[in-house]
Order: sequence, then C-alpha cells, then structure tokens
Amino acid sequence: MYYDNLTLLTDLYELTMMQGYFKQNIHDKTVVFEVFYRDNPDNGAYAIVAGLEQVVEYVKNLSFKKEDIEYLRALNKFEDDFLDYLENFKFKGDIHAIPEGTVVFPQEPLLKIKSSIIEGQLIEGAVLNIINHQSLIATKASHIVWAANGDTVLEFGLRRAQGPDAAIYGARAAIIGGCEATSNLLAGKMFDVPVSGTHAHSWVMSFENEITAFRAYADMFPENPILLVDTFNTLEQGVPNAIKVFEELKQKGVKFKRYGIRLDSGDLSYISKEARKLLDKAGFTDAIISASSDLDEYLISELKSQGAEISVWGVGTNLITSKGWSAFGGVYKLVAEIGNDKNILPKIKLSENPDKITNPGDKKVFRIYNKKNHKIKADLIALANEKICNKSDLTIFDPKATWKKMKLKANEFEVRELLVPIFAQGECVYTLPTVIEIREYCKKELLTLWGESKRLVNPHVIPVDLSHDLFTLKNDMIKRLKD
Amino acid sequence: MYYDNLTLLTDLYELTMMQGYFKQNIHDKTVVFEVFYRDNPDNGAYAIVAGLEQVVEYVKNLSFKKEDIEYLRALNKFEDDFLDYLENFKFKGDIHAIPEGTVVFPQEPLLKIKSSIIEGQLIEGAVLNIINHQSLIATKASHIVWAANGDTVLEFGLRRAQGPDAAIYGARAAIIGGCEATSNLLAGKMFDVPVSGTHAHSWVMSFENEITAFRAYADMFPENPILLVDTFNTLEQGVPNAIKVFEELKQKGVKFKRYGIRLDSGDLSYISKEARKLLDKAGFTDAIISASSDLDEYLISELKSQGAEISVWGVGTNLITSKGWSAFGGVYKLVAEIGNDKNILPKIKLSENPDKITNPGDKKVFRIYNKKNHKIKADLIALANEKICNKSDLTIFDPKATWKKMKLKANEFEVRELLVPIFAQGECVYTLPTVIEIREYCKKELLTLWGESKRLVNPHVIPVDLSHDLFTLKNDMIKRLKD
Repeated sequence: MYYDNLTLLTDLYELTMMQGYFKQNIHDKTVVFEVFYRDNPDNGAYAIVAGLEQVVEYVKNLSFKKEDIEYLRALNKFEDDFLDYLENFKFKGDIHAIPEGTVVFPQEPLLKIKSSIIEGQLIEGAVLNIINHQSLIATKASHIVWAANGDTVLEFGLRRAQGPDAAIYGARAAIIGGCEATSNLLAGKMFDVPVSGTHAHSWVMSFENEITAFRAYADMFPENPILLVDTFNTLEQGVPNAIKVFEELKQKGVKFKRYGIRLDSGDLSYISKEARKLLDKAGFTDAIISASSDLDEYLISELKSQGAEISVWGVGTNLITSKGWSAFGGVYKLVAEIGNDKNILPKIKLSENPDKITNPGDKKVFRIYNKKNHKIKADLIALANEKICNKSDLTIFDPKATWKKMKLKANEFEVRELLVPIFAQGECVYTLPTVIEIREYCKKELLTLWGESKRLVNPHVIPVDLSHDLFTLKNDMIKRLKD
Repeated sequence: MYYDNLTLLTDLYELTMMQGYFKQNIHDKTVVFEVFYRDNPDNGAYAIVAGLEQVVEYVKNLSFKKEDIEYLRALNKFEDDFLDYLENFKFKGDIHAIPEGTVVFPQEPLLKIKSSIIEGQLIEGAVLNIINHQSLIATKASHIVWAANGDTVLEFGLRRAQGPDAAIYGARAAIIGGCEATSNLLAGKMFDVPVSGTHAHSWVMSFENEITAFRAYADMFPENPILLVDTFNTLEQGVPNAIKVFEELKQKGVKFKRYGIRLDSGDLSYISKEARKLLDKAGFTDAIISASSDLDEYLISELKSQGAEISVWGVGTNLITSKGWSAFGGVYKLVAEIGNDKNILPKIKLSENPDKITNPGDKKVFRIYNKKNHKIKADLIALANEKICNKSDLTIFDPKATWKKMKLKANEFEVRELLVPIFAQGECVYTLPTVIEIREYCKKELLTLWGESKRLVNPHVIPVDLSHDLFTLKNDMIKRLKD
C-alpha cells in the first residue's frame, strides 16, 4: 500500500546474520534451504500449495534501494563494507518448487533454494509469508468447495481479511482452491478471475421501501436480478416482494438468465426450504437461492445434509482468515551445504521432539500413483541424486514405524517428481500459469485423492515416506550428534 | 505489492449499487454510514481501535484510473454514463473517527461517514478491511502485553502473517497495542518503530559447531550478544557454550549492554529456570533470558505464574494472526439520510436477533469517567444533537434491561466525546500522530480500565448505554416497522 519494494520485508536477524556471514567471509558459500510444513490445516489430510507467482515476482525485484540502505545504516548495527555490498545485491541462485495448486503433504520440500547463504538467508521471511498465506487459504477453500459438493462457492471476504493483501492474495488463493468467483474487484482485475455480487442491505434501506429498492435493482439488471430478501422479514416480506418483482419482469417479457434471491441471516436450512416453496408455487422453479452468513465448510456440510435449498454459497470471514487455523506453519530450514568440491554436506536440526528433527540433505519428492486409477498411494522424499521408476518392484516404509511397509509391483504404479525448476542462476526459467489454469490443475489434483482423504473429520492420511538412503543418512547424523 | 491504488479494493456489489443510485439519480443524496463491531475479540471486555492512518491515506488517494474504468467496462455490467461519472470521482464527504489506540466497546460508532450515498457506498470494503485488521491485532497485542505484566513483548510474526500487508500493518498495530519492537524491517522503516532480532538456527548450523557460531556472532556484536541456545541441546550444550563465550568476552574487557540467551523450544518454564541457575552460577546474573515458541497471552500468563525466568517474550503466529479469533467483525451500516431541508431521517436494519438490530440516526459517543480515579464508568451512545455535561446529575440505563440504572452525581463524573473530525468536505482536518505517540496514548487509555476488565478470562464488562432519546427513537422505529 505504501511501499513499492519488498526487499526489506525480512526480519532484522536475517540482516545481522548476513552481515555475520559477510564479515566471516563465508557469505558466498552455497547452501540449500527448504520450505516445508509439519501439520495439515484444520487437521485435514492434505494441503494445496499456493503463492509461487508472488514469490517469483518478489525474488525478481529483490534489490536494496538507497533509502533502504540509509535506513539500515541509521540502525547503527551494520558496517559500511556490508552496506556497500548490499547495494549490488541480487538473487543469483536456483529455486525449485512444487507448482501452485498441487496437493501436498507435511515434511515435503515445497520450495528448495540453492544459493549463496547470504541470498538464501535474506528471503526466508517473505517467501514463508507468501507461501504460508496463500497455501492456507487455498487449502481452506478446497475444504469449503468439497463441502459444497458441486454447488458454487463464492469468495466474499474482503471486509474481514487481515489487511488489503490478505484480501487480494487471499481471493487469488481461494480461486485456486476452487471458488468460482470473488467479490473483490481489485483481485478480479489483477488476476483476471470472475467477480460476483449483487446488492447489500444499504441498497434496500436507501429507498422508501423494499419493493421500490427491488424494482430499482431489477431495472438495472432485468435478466440477472439476485435480490437480498432479509432486510426486514425474509419470508413474510422479502421473498413475496422478490416474487412480485419477478412476475413484473416476466410480464414485461424479460427472459431471465440467472435470477433469484440471497439469504444473509436466520436459519438457512428452514428459511431456504420455505423460500423454495414460495418461489416454486409462484412458478419460479429455476430461481436460484444463494446464501451467505458466517458460513464455513462444517456449516455448509450440515446445511446440505439437512436438505437446505441453497445452490450458491458466499463465504467470507471463515474462508479469508481460515478461521480456526489461522496460520499454515511453513518453516524454512538449512538442509545442506555444498562444498568447494561440489560435495554435499547435509545439515540437520535436532530437537527433543522427534517430529521437529529436520530431514537433512539436498532432496526431491516422488509422488507414487496407482497406475489404474491415478490415485496417490504415497509420497517418497529422497536425496536429490536418487532415481526411482516403475520398471521394477518398489518397497517403501514408514520412517516412524519401519515395519509398516508398502510393496508396489512394477508397472502397477506411476512416479512423478514434484519439484520443478523455477529459477536457475537467478533467472526465472518457469512459465507462470494463469490463476484459472491453476484452478483447473488443482481440480485435477484433488481427483488424485480418495474422498476418504478429503473428509472434513478424521480423514485418511497419505503416507509420506523417506527413501532408504535418506532414512539412513538422517539416523546416522542423529546418532553421531547425540553420542 | 502489485498495485498502487486501492480504489478497486471494493466489492463488485458496491459498484452495482453505485450505478443504481446514479441511474435513479439519487447518488448525491447525503447519508450517514457507521462502522461498529458487535463482539470483543477473544471474549475480552474491550478492543483497541487502529488503522485510521491507512484509512486516511486510502480516502485521500481515491480515484479511478483509466485502466480501472476499462476493467469495469469489460465486465459488461456498467453503462457509459456511469463510467464517465467515475472518471472524476473524489471523496468529498465528512468523516469522524475515534482516534487510534483508544479503548472501545461494542456497538459504538468507531467511524462515521457523512457523504453522498455513492461515495459512502464505495469505501465500505476497504475501510472495514483496514479497521478490522489493525483493531484485531492491536487488541490481541494489548492482551499479550497485559499477560507479560511489565516484561518486554516483541512482535515476531512476519513469516506467519496472512500476506505482506498483514505483516507490515500487523506489526504497526502490535506496536500500538504495546509491543516494544518488531522483527520486521520494512515495518520498522515505514513507521519509524524499533526493530529487534538476533540470529536463527541456520546461523548455528552454518558453522562447524555451536561454539564457533556463538563466537562469530559475539565478534560482531560483543556488547549485545543474545545467543539462541537450542539448536542441539539447550541445557547440556547451548547454555554452557553461551556462558563460555560470555566469559571470553568478559576476559577481553567487553562491557555488556544487553546480553543473554534466547530459548525457542522445550518446556520454557523448566528450561528457563535451569538456564537461570547456570547463568547465575557463572556470575552472569544480569544476562537476559528471552523466549519465543508458540507463545500467546494464556501461555505467557501460565509460564509467569509458574515462575519462568523469562523477561523478554517474542510472539509470532498467535499475535500476528490473532489465533483463535481471526477477524474483528466490524460492520458498516447505513444509519441516516439527510433530507434536502437538512432534516435527519434515521434508518434502521431489523433482524430476528435483537442484538443485530442497528442503532438508527446520526450519533456520537460520550465516555463517562469517574472523576476521582479517571476510570471508565460507562459509555453512552447518543444522537448527534445531544449534549451532556457533568454540571447536573445524570442517570443512564441498560438498553436491554432498562431497570438497570447507573446514577451519576454532578461533578463526580467527567465526560469526553470520543469521535473527532477527520475529513471535512473531503479535506483531511486531522493531524496524524506517529505510531509511537499512539502507543503512548494507548498505554494511558488502558489505565482507564480496571484490571478486572483486562483479565483474560471472563473480564468485567463496561456498560455501553443508549441515551434516552436514542432509545426512544429506536424502539419507536422498530414498533412502526413491525406493526
């Protein structure tokens, strides 16, 4: 809003560490950082990764302006030689990422940054911020769209989002996760995605009465009137007034394209069923009933199971803030150092909590599908130099309970590598898809999960295993450090 | 990030309504819109309002660029005369607001917009977005700072915030709510607020061992080393290594300014107490112990009650996303229309839920203090033409239970009007305070509440009453509409 460059969108400690690397003259050492997350939002069985386009823009635009450097100088923490160095700072490393809209699971590297340590260190905060936010909202949207079971879901969260970006990029992520349209015009313009919306209570209140307001709205959009019917009394006044206006339009010979009512309060199950009866009785059997009002995936699911007569769901607050699970929790960890001889020196972070010990080394992710139905059987995190193919049998195992094995017969499975090149030596080598293309891809991605893994409560978890080599490396390193 | 004007940061339906007002030729009619909220975040007894500075900037910059208008034209919903009209659109109305950092309560108008209906309608979405976000985070910060009970609280949430703005303006709001500093450099630069931070695990992992990393860091900041001690084993390795480095610095004759350790995992109560013993035993009794790791107000409160030896709290995710209560819930309602004769025509929105019926009319808010101790006794929402002063006795009553009365004796109370002029006929007439000034004001504001109203669980609620005139008006209108 009041900034035009996100280079300083980083934590102070990244800069102090960068200066430290610089002073120790190790700033050009090549390392590998990884972005991964530990827990699926809302106790689900998957996430949808999103935000890569904004990461690409951010990385491309990285550069310290004069005023940034003067700001840093005024903090009295940084030395002149380091500040001089920053003047020509540019990202020159490699980035791999799992494409936006992909179904992903915990522990998998979503992004992998191979660069000088000073470059990799700087971008931690902004990369996490962007990926965490958009992945959170895309995942939430996919849950809501799943609950709507084929109905239309619209993103209506602008007014409750956590700031302008949260509204704009949240709308983007919501579309990726399967929403049909957003109410947010700026998001519509920026991402070329459909926008949606009709009128508010204030429209009704600014006329002398409800029917006058409805008529005025229908005057403007005679073929597409969706009338908000709950300003005064939904069933006794709002719906009858809407019907009266529809009848007037019909008498004028209007051919409706998409018309109906919107409910924004009251018990949506009861009211929608009663409204349906009134509309049907008047002959408007094709009138749409849309609803908004504190909706989320659980409420939509319950309303549908009660037979609510609603086919369009406008979801605001609970989608755009991912209510109940407000952060994605992605982390950024150093996993390897590349020696002068190009040897890879894996790095590990220990923890008393076994789940928090990182997976060391430069890695990749294989996704293993059942060849017959193209459903995901498991993901396998492996070292970057490993290869697997479906020409021979493959046995994988749970790294926490190694006796839990999955045996895959040659030719009965398919393998796909998830990480693709995004930047090579600082140049973007990736063609960014449009948001609508990402949504279509994401729809296909979700078909690779059984419904059992999309269920809202206690879904079936997909195994994410470590390759034999990675498992051995990790355990050897733990043993060495702990002995 | 990729936009430079927020004029299109609005819902599509605002534009369709604006076109409707324009086509009906009622777009110049003067109306009053109000921003208020219904429930205090986290079931607290108050909120801290914030975001006004960004609202002011937004309103000042409102204007449709050529490309915005072309975008709207391409939607095929808008007519040429309306789009032509938008070309010269400017906000020319009045805005009143409660200053940032003020303690506020539900139902009170936080902002009041008196303008043509077409102007007031456009700005709903962005105004709510900004006020909702920053008020949410400022309130959360004030709860956390309250729990820390005099300790320092730092805002560390960049990587988990819901997008760049959420990090930047969230940091601003966190400082308003009482945080000492933020880790976010861009926020530090934009708002001239203190920044804070030391080093991460990646620093330790990028050296051959922990003590080498600590020495390198201490080389850079010998007087201010705060060392992160939990990369491998906090009590057996991290703290002893930190002590070794402090001893080396001491031997070199370094005079410490602010030094110590940071804990980022494990049981912070146990580990901090053990670390304190080790530091004290080595003679470093003034070494600071700071902590981060999934902190929020409840955990800080419990850790303190268990005697945790921590005096600096770095709070990330739970502060910056207001975990557990991720939206403020402010709404924007039409409350009055001003006739050609300047007569005020109050407007009301009914609902089956009595709490959702709006308070009609152009209003103001009086805050009533106990004159002796300057604590808030009650707030009184009144019509804009009402006056109250402390020269005579005043009796106020609970609008939901009118027999609950509070009698205030003349000269034993003080009255303050909360809403102040911000825009007059489109010109900003308000001098924006700095963020640090707002924080100091907010500290004083919080002193006007008893601890009983700041308690985290089931706090004492301050009455927000309606004046006799407003109460009568509201009930008369409800009666008229319902009969």
